[in-house]
Amino acid sequence: MTSPLKIAVAGLGTVGAGTLKLLNANAGFIAAKCGRPVVVTAVSARDAKKKRDGVDLANVKWFDDPVKMADQADADVIVELIGGSEGAARQTVETALAKKRHVVTANKALLAHHGVALATTAEKAGLTLAYEAAVAGGIPIIKTLREGLAGNAIQRIYGILNGTCNYILTTMRATGRDFGDVLKEAQDLGYAEADPSFDIDGVDAAHKLAILASVAFGMEVDFKSMHVEGIRRIGALDIAYAEQMGFRIKLIGHASRVGDAFTQRVYPCLISPDSPLAAVEGVFNAVVTEGDFVGRSVLEGRGAGAGPTASAVVADIIDIASGRKVPTFGVPASVLTKSKIVPISERVGAYYVRLVVVDQPGVFADIAAAFRDESVSMESVLQRGKNENAQVNVVIITHDTQEAPLLRVFKKLEANKAVVEPPHMIRIERFPAP
Amino acid sequence: MTSPLKIAVAGLGTVGAGTLKLLNANAGFIAAKCGRPVVVTAVSARDAKKKRDGVDLANVKWFDDPVKMADQADADVIVELIGGSEGAARQTVETALAKKRHVVTANKALLAHHGVALATTAEKAGLTLAYEAAVAGGIPIIKTLREGLAGNAIQRIYGILNGTCNYILTTMRATGRDFGDVLKEAQDLGYAEADPSFDIDGVDAAHKLAILASVAFGMEVDFKSMHVEGIRRIGALDIAYAEQMGFRIKLIGHASRVGDAFTQRVYPCLISPDSPLAAVEGVFNAVVTEGDFVGRSVLEGRGAGAGPTASAVVADIIDIASGRKVPTFGVPASVLTKSKIVPISERVGAYYVRLVVVDQPGVFADIAAAFRDESVSMESVLQRGKNENAQVNVVIITHDTQEAPLLRVFKKLEANKAVVEPPHMIRIERFPAP
Repeated sequence: MTSPLKIAVAGLGTVGAGTLKLLNANAGFIAAKCGRPVVVTAVSARDAKKKRDGVDLANVKWFDDPVKMADQADADVIVELIGGSEGAARQTVETALAKKRHVVTANKALLAHHGVALATTAEKAGLTLAYEAAVAGGIPIIKTLREGLAGNAIQRIYGILNGTCNYILTTMRATGRDFGDVLKEAQDLGYAEADPSFDIDGVDAAHKLAILASVAFGMEVDFKSMHVEGIRRIGALDIAYAEQMGFRIKLIGHASRVGDAFTQRVYPCLISPDSPLAAVEGVFNAVVTEGDFVGRSVLEGRGAGAGPTASAVVADIIDIASGRKVPTFGVPASVLTKSKIVPISERVGAYYVRLVVVDQPGVFADIAAAFRDESVSMESVLQRGKNENAQVNVVIITHDTQEAPLLRVFKKLEANKAVVEPPHMIRIERFPAP
Repeated sequence: MTSPLKIAVAGLGTVGAGTLKLLNANAGFIAAKCGRPVVVTAVSARDAKKKRDGVDLANVKWFDDPVKMADQADADVIVELIGGSEGAARQTVETALAKKRHVVTANKALLAHHGVALATTAEKAGLTLAYEAAVAGGIPIIKTLREGLAGNAIQRIYGILNGTCNYILTTMRATGRDFGDVLKEAQDLGYAEADPSFDIDGVDAAHKLAILASVAFGMEVDFKSMHVEGIRRIGALDIAYAEQMGFRIKLIGHASRVGDAFTQRVYPCLISPDSPLAAVEGVFNAVVTEGDFVGRSVLEGRGAGAGPTASAVVADIIDIASGRKVPTFGVPASVLTKSKIVPISERVGAYYVRLVVVDQPGVFADIAAAFRDESVSMESVLQRGKNENAQVNVVIITHDTQEAPLLRVFKKLEANKAVVEPPHMIRIERFPAP
């Protein structure tokens, strides 16, 4: 048998511990698949004394400093599970590559911000920079895009990329409860962080989408040009109205090819219940791809958690142990195209608009005039109840329009004293049939 | 740039032509991904004069005989798209391997019958025998099992593996029409062959499941031990009754690990509308996997057709061009375990039973007694209408039972003159929640 592949793991949180457990539990067949054993030789974490059930560190060298481990450990591969786009995580990865070690990481922020530079370094040195675990852990979407669907020009990729948001939206729909209430519960259950902003403001999904768009389209990762909105402003009312009108609200990241330019956007949107994403509930993730020969494919699985993420980390390790190589973003970093991103103001599509207005004569005429003046036409209008001088909700579904004129409508409405809240706008996405 | 990878294609039907079109259309980025161009140097088909729109054979050597091509062509890879487990297809693949050429094939029958022998030959010679296109073309399930989920012990794999059957069942449900009628339409539309038996009798799905079970469980492909039933006996009535009782009928192949033994079975069954397979309609395929760390993953896509199958063939070619290798069935053929298959008679589960009986006093008491005598208990009974001495349908859902005693109940019922047709039995599959 060939010599073992030696692994050093930086970060022993949920995912790090899960990775060690997996490598231990399934060591036998992993060695058979790779033609060599995979052994963990070193680990690094903040607290050496912390109890880690089921993790055996007896024959493993401990480092307090992950960067020192990346520099000095007896290891072929550094597994970076620290997280964050800067600081220790970035230094650990850069040090590992400088020391000619392969890198496996679950760090979406790092890839989204420094992916091209790191890929360039790795490829020049003939090293692997692997990151299946960075995007939708339980779904091998990076491998699927880079290898399984490699013959296809990908036209579009979209998905539910953040389990926390999907859990919150699923629970809001099931229970009719409001955002803040459900967020608190998600925090209590461990589905949301104490500081939840990365998840609920869409940043986490945007990191993942930036990576997916790069691999799908062979363009440089361009997180800065991403249009990102989260789910804070989605109310129980919006979910109920959407349901009545035959839609479901999901936080979706989507990227598409438009001529020689690309869109890459994350926002909550109304989708048809027939969409393959509509039935993806709770903490599950799903990704839909459209390729020129293969047509539509859908992949669904757990997006996060110890087991699914460890599964992705270990798949990358097995590829390295087996000598399988693939360019970081599908094509060599040197031939990635510059991104050319279509701004959100040029989006054409339908919109859900909820206005909170004082119910008095003439208000609706003012609203209708504002839409008419910008040539934004309405497909349907819903106003429940009648309650003179009280606040009521008016829900409008527009026909397809550019986004820019709709924003001008909103400006006009906000100047109207009878419109008592900034308009609640949610885009409607009608993904083509397969 | 490295020297081109040279390809010879045996069989220029829909998939062969599609493969040439894809390699031509996407040649630029395929070369970028592989670090070398992929060129077709030879082809073989039955009819040299047949018009093949969009396929350019100007710089390609023509062979009338695929086996001669496998022997003599200037090619690194032979792509076998002839089909069938014996004859020209088998000889072509065996000749290619003997001549130290890699093989890419879409031939599920060949793999199901001779997979282990061919894998052994290929692996001894350091050659690739690739077959992503053999199972659910548009879904990269072979890559997902062998690489993407490689760290997991797979507990169960199941799916909709035959688009023809799924199209027929979907259409029967949507229109209320009967099997024969819908089959004829599927044949007219080109979704079913003139001789449809391979599809509708479940053989095609069983070929695919035998391959999946081998890769999932690291066991030798064992098509002969597969339990296979098709959809010929599913009536419009069964679909309507299933619907009423909250089920949907699908032809499903499933394989699971039971201690140190395995099940591998293909039959139509009643599944819950909540199952990820229930919403997979028409010609789409879907595969669900359950791994010990990753949990449940679902992959859905087109199962057949020129584009999806060509996509899979080309993915295998790109792996070869890029130098990526993986053992044929995930682990080397020499360490595949012997299959140990649980017989269908030991199945424990619930059953749908439809009896066509003459509506006369005492019949139901006889039926109930037959079930009671074998300790098979009923969860529900449905009898529509009352029509003395005419034929009526009695539909029974059983509680969980072994299959053997239920078959003894059927034997007793068949001896009863009031039971005028052999019992219509469909198994109920309750796949665990994710």
